[in-house]
Amino acid sequence: MTDAFFFELQARDAEARTGVIKTPKGGIRTPAFMPVGTAGTVKAMLPDHVRATGADIVLGNTYHLMLRPTAERVAALGGLHKFMNWPRPILTDSGGFQVMSLSKLRKLTEEGVSFQSHIDGSSHMLTPERSIEIQCLLGSDIQMQLDECPAMPIAHGDARQSMELSARWAARSKAAFVEKSKPGQALFGIVQGANYEDLRRESLDRLMEIDFPGYSVGGLAVGEGREEMFRVLEFTTPHMTLEKPRYLMGVGKPADIVGAVARGIDMFDCVAPTRSGRHGQAWTKAGPINIKNARYADDPEPLDAQSDCPASRDYSKAYLNHLFRAGEYLGPMLLTWHNLQYYQDLMAAMRDAISAGRFGQFIADFKAATGEEIV
Amino acid sequence: MTDAFFFELQARDAEARTGVIKTPKGGIRTPAFMPVGTAGTVKAMLPDHVRATGADIVLGNTYHLMLRPTAERVAALGGLHKFMNWPRPILTDSGGFQVMSLSKLRKLTEEGVSFQSHIDGSSHMLTPERSIEIQCLLGSDIQMQLDECPAMPIAHGDARQSMELSARWAARSKAAFVEKSKPGQALFGIVQGANYEDLRRESLDRLMEIDFPGYSVGGLAVGEGREEMFRVLEFTTPHMTLEKPRYLMGVGKPADIVGAVARGIDMFDCVAPTRSGRHGQAWTKAGPINIKNARYADDPEPLDAQSDCPASRDYSKAYLNHLFRAGEYLGPMLLTWHNLQYYQDLMAAMRDAISAGRFGQFIADFKAATGEEIV
Repeated sequence: MTDAFFFELQARDAEARTGVIKTPKGGIRTPAFMPVGTAGTVKAMLPDHVRATGADIVLGNTYHLMLRPTAERVAALGGLHKFMNWPRPILTDSGGFQVMSLSKLRKLTEEGVSFQSHIDGSSHMLTPERSIEIQCLLGSDIQMQLDECPAMPIAHGDARQSMELSARWAARSKAAFVEKSKPGQALFGIVQGANYEDLRRESLDRLMEIDFPGYSVGGLAVGEGREEMFRVLEFTTPHMTLEKPRYLMGVGKPADIVGAVARGIDMFDCVAPTRSGRHGQAWTKAGPINIKNARYADDPEPLDAQSDCPASRDYSKAYLNHLFRAGEYLGPMLLTWHNLQYYQDLMAAMRDAISAGRFGQFIADFKAATGEEIV
Repeated sequence: MTDAFFFELQARDAEARTGVIKTPKGGIRTPAFMPVGTAGTVKAMLPDHVRATGADIVLGNTYHLMLRPTAERVAALGGLHKFMNWPRPILTDSGGFQVMSLSKLRKLTEEGVSFQSHIDGSSHMLTPERSIEIQCLLGSDIQMQLDECPAMPIAHGDARQSMELSARWAARSKAAFVEKSKPGQALFGIVQGANYEDLRRESLDRLMEIDFPGYSVGGLAVGEGREEMFRVLEFTTPHMTLEKPRYLMGVGKPADIVGAVARGIDMFDCVAPTRSGRHGQAWTKAGPINIKNARYADDPEPLDAQSDCPASRDYSKAYLNHLFRAGEYLGPMLLTWHNLQYYQDLMAAMRDAISAGRFGQFIADFKAATGEEIV
């Protein structure tokens, strides 16, 4: 284990890739799915079980953590890894996306974004420098630059202005990161430009000039639809360097992920498996089911009898149905666990398929099993 | 493992006892604390972790289970053990106590008690025979007779009438149990009589004439206070046969349990560790603390650094404080686990002390550590 951060590309199958991101806190097998641990906990999960599903890395949300318990408090307690009892890699976002979606009275300027906390109304300012400072206080292994993530549809001129602001913030983020970070930590730049090919290219060029150890694709999965998202990836990822990891932020459902891996993406995060698990939706090899449906009240079969995951294997659908109807904690606990296992099994299966040069067959099988048409 | 149910008394220290209740589903070390799994789940706990704390047996509530998912459904799914993934002994109550405290429009007659469900208003009738039928459908290893549990204070005449009704129901319960039960299952009679010595004696005599493999002490922990509860135990347990287990229903806080063990009780159940855990109260060797208190927001120490329990050992008080403030599932999950570990550690320590003939010293140490005066 060295202090270096680097990506080891191990195999390619058409545009799809598999490899390992090496960090001082451990390796991250790609394609990787990162469970979301918003407020320092993957909701309803014990860290040991998150790991047992096969997760190499979890995501923390800068916006939530800066407000409660605060980055300074987490730092005084030894950092986010120790705080949440997760000794492996952690990626944090910049906080920008959630400021824009969750906070009140937000105001965007060249300097950054000022806002009021959705928790207690207190005033805060998030700049590229402050975001990096917070992420370094948390001790994040993979940090994100502050960016602006505009909604789509957006006019070309507005998309250009927004992309250029994000590019200037990328440079300021890099400067702050160089000053504050520790060896082995990494900062990713974020490609913006909405669904305009020229802007995505220009955004990428400007980021590569600044030079980052990894690049995120931002501004997608904001309502544009799966086909449009795939179209943007198709004219973006081929221009990204092969040697750096590529992270598609906030994506997605299983078919989104499979399709994005086919288009060259390496890293993903999404609340889908955890949030839907808390609400009674279970992902299965044949697609999602709602366990609260009356049809499961007498079903003696588990979600996946062949699984090694206790949540998938050791409890009948009838029991899970009962737990949700009775409003018991154990329902969300088991379904979250099951869904995370489903996602990690999916990632592992894709890594194997890419290594074996049979990812095309994998996609065909996935479409047939789930009934998904666009992958 | 035979099909027999029996109690092996291993050691006595004054009135305190230690031993093992042997059942076909496994042994129950006494004094025993039974975590409450009301609706087929010990709230916010995985069964493996319930077991890991040292629990040999859990309790299920007939009232809740008969209404949802229904005893017939549980039976069709293979019984409560399989349903909730707990292969060890299960004790069920008769349902009577919760009918009286939770249901609507209840009416008590010689035949039984009719009531409306608190969930959907549906009408039900619970008789001694129906209670046994339900408990046999669930597959309970230790079943309880239907009884009436009057509030205190109660006049002597009313207490006598109530106790006599419970005694008649005991006989009907036994007859139904003989007909419906399987080898190795046990039915306990319940001693009533409020806080009247003559009635408790008479209740016990009538039950011993019917003959049960174990006896519960009911009608306590209903607001009479710890001193009064101990006074009732002091004139009740000395008349109970040494060879049968004694179960004090619905008790209690740690000091209640320690004091009741000193007065000859072998088995306990209570929602205290689980319910208080969900609300942020943690039991510690120095007594209970409220983890939501601001004083813990920066406390880097775990609840018990010496514990083998991950919930007690691997998370700082500051983190637990954060989880409760943020309304995260993991807060109740960890504090419930910690509290159950505390309770099971307490029971194990009492068993050791009784075996070693130093239970008096154990009580003195417990009082000194917790500041409890009445034990």
